Amino acid sequence: MTSGAMNSASDAVPAIVIEPGKKGGAQLGAVAREPITAGSVRLAVQAVGVCGTDAEICEGLYGQAPAGERQLVLGHEALARVTEVGPGVESLAVGQLVVPIVRRPCQPPCAACSQGRWDECLTGNYQEHGIKGLHGFMRQELVVGADAVVPLPEALAEVGMLTEPLTIVEKAVERALALHQLGSGEPRRALVTGAGPVGLLGALLLLCRGLEVYVVDRRPAGSPKAQLVESVGAHYIDDSATPMEQAAPTGGFDIALEATGYAPLLFRALSALGVNGVLVLTGVTGGHHELDVDVNLMNTTMVLENQAMVGSVNAARRHYQQAAQDLAAFVTRFGPAVPALITERVPLSQFAQAFDKAPDAIKSVVMVAEGAR
Amino acid sequence: MTSGAMNSASDAVPAIVIEPGKKGGAQLGAVAREPITAGSVRLAVQAVGVCGTDAEICEGLYGQAPAGERQLVLGHEALARVTEVGPGVESLAVGQLVVPIVRRPCQPPCAACSQGRWDECLTGNYQEHGIKGLHGFMRQELVVGADAVVPLPEALAEVGMLTEPLTIVEKAVERALALHQLGSGEPRRALVTGAGPVGLLGALLLLCRGLEVYVVDRRPAGSPKAQLVESVGAHYIDDSATPMEQAAPTGGFDIALEATGYAPLLFRALSALGVNGVLVLTGVTGGHHELDVDVNLMNTTMVLENQAMVGSVNAARRHYQQAAQDLAAFVTRFGPAVPALITERVPLSQFAQAFDKAPDAIKSVVMVAEGAR
Repeated sequence: MTSGAMNSASDAVPAIVIEPGKKGGAQLGAVAREPITAGSVRLAVQAVGVCGTDAEICEGLYGQAPAGERQLVLGHEALARVTEVGPGVESLAVGQLVVPIVRRPCQPPCAACSQGRWDECLTGNYQEHGIKGLHGFMRQELVVGADAVVPLPEALAEVGMLTEPLTIVEKAVERALALHQLGSGEPRRALVTGAGPVGLLGALLLLCRGLEVYVVDRRPAGSPKAQLVESVGAHYIDDSATPMEQAAPTGGFDIALEATGYAPLLFRALSALGVNGVLVLTGVTGGHHELDVDVNLMNTTMVLENQAMVGSVNAARRHYQQAAQDLAAFVTRFGPAVPALITERVPLSQFAQAFDKAPDAIKSVVMVAEGAR
Repeated sequence: MTSGAMNSASDAVPAIVIEPGKKGGAQLGAVAREPITAGSVRLAVQAVGVCGTDAEICEGLYGQAPAGERQLVLGHEALARVTEVGPGVESLAVGQLVVPIVRRPCQPPCAACSQGRWDECLTGNYQEHGIKGLHGFMRQELVVGADAVVPLPEALAEVGMLTEPLTIVEKAVERALALHQLGSGEPRRALVTGAGPVGLLGALLLLCRGLEVYVVDRRPAGSPKAQLVESVGAHYIDDSATPMEQAAPTGGFDIALEATGYAPLLFRALSALGVNGVLVLTGVTGGHHELDVDVNLMNTTMVLENQAMVGSVNAARRHYQQAAQDLAAFVTRFGPAVPALITERVPLSQFAQAFDKAPDAIKSVVMVAEGAR
């Protein structure tokens, strides 16, 4: 945890590497140790969460190695600790818990990227650690600019790797509430489709924003996900037993957070909205899915009921700052339900286990620091 | 124009009346003269614009008479002048040009209606002049509460009946810009689908908000609508000659205002958006229209491009106030293009002409004051 041991380590840094475009080739390899430079910090990675994008990259469907390199280090949902600060860095000290920011500005930065709003990058030339052009965080250590990390309170030492997925939710909820708040009524009821990490973090955030929350998934009542949802004070709907249209409260939902990426569900969530309701979309799935849609009904309902459907991607610097604050609030308010979102922790050497998802699994995490010891 | 002549008139007030649910029965009839009461004003109606809702009511598809009555006075896009003020009214004087507000609060007023935000009425029990439970404005005079009219500057004596359709646009543009402004970039390019009254008023408003505006319709280049669009400094696209997808500028649109209600166009407008683009829907059409939609593509594009589709209905008091101000600004900035939106003016006795719409027609207006003389 201190920089001493790290500095005496060899130049090879253990890392999970893949070859973009190649299926199933993720392996424990190594990358070269990076030198510290002015304005940068060295991080010891503590843990990295695994998500659907990582799985797609492992399938060869996605991912881009850094320029001139063949391999890409995987991982983007990291919790890390500062082990060394470069010259000129005054905002961070050794030992500070941080989350490194995934998306980095295009170069030269466009008007959005230069404001820390790379989620709105106007050129499309942004880079993303572990995804697009920059090595990811499943490695024992890395060096990044001090402006590319956001400090976390020590209370998040166990669950801080949930910060990055929470940033997605922060932005989505910000967008939904901004539109809803143009209207006169306070949002009261929220629907969350999908009890995965994004959906469950969304439920916690919406509860903290004062809403009554319904989470819909297809796991049975009494299952661990259902229990978790109910333990935090939200309602659980098993859509395979009672379609959510029947379980929805009278008057419909003010906010709906779509967190499955299963597009047909989008139209069902839309129809569950009440007057002035906002559906915010956060998930994507590949491929085609043709659906017969009564577009007149959709248009008419959206107009007459003053409803909206809003896409949301990635997150800006402010969403990281907000997520750090809210995740700490979750720990205070919801206690054991927050670490319970992490259903599996595997050492770096057994990273492949983290990709085998059981139906009741939520977030699998690779414990990089442990595995490297 | 003064109250003297009106006060000596008979008790029968000429009006265009229909029987809700009965097709083609609109006729010149009469309603009883109303007494002035405390807090109310008597209005001499100057002119009333005709819109698609009026046509649907004449077709028997829509409309509801006041409680206990068989007939409904038609018309809701009015320009009027105060001819008498009741006891206790201090905000309005005889001679004041006004627009009467169409939608009135539910009773007892819900939280939204009590704030002048009847467009968000939570009970659905709002009333609408000329549409739902209240007589409309195609009558020589009426008495309404002083709080049910918004004053207009004298500069709008010729075109003030465009205020009400402009309120629809004000709300729609407010919603689109609020969402776009969550992002970092200024909105630059707007698409308007449909060169009808709402579309063209939308084009003028978006020009006044500093955007470059493209209006798409199916009338040929050189047609009156195309000329009008170009005369105000917007671009005209004849979709039947060059599909708007080809005519759209690189980078797509930041704001799109859908003003046809033709639902398939909605998906085309959505696909014409750029990053962070917002499509706002204002039009509705009846019936079913099944369409094969690639819902994955729609979902993925909306998420990854941070796009939104937002319905917008009716308007609150603040939109009337904003519309009064902006319509006056249109007259100053666009000069003859504003009265040119009114392509037909017919006297009350020949109101039926106003429903025969030629392809180049924009807004037909019934000149109530003239016809009644």
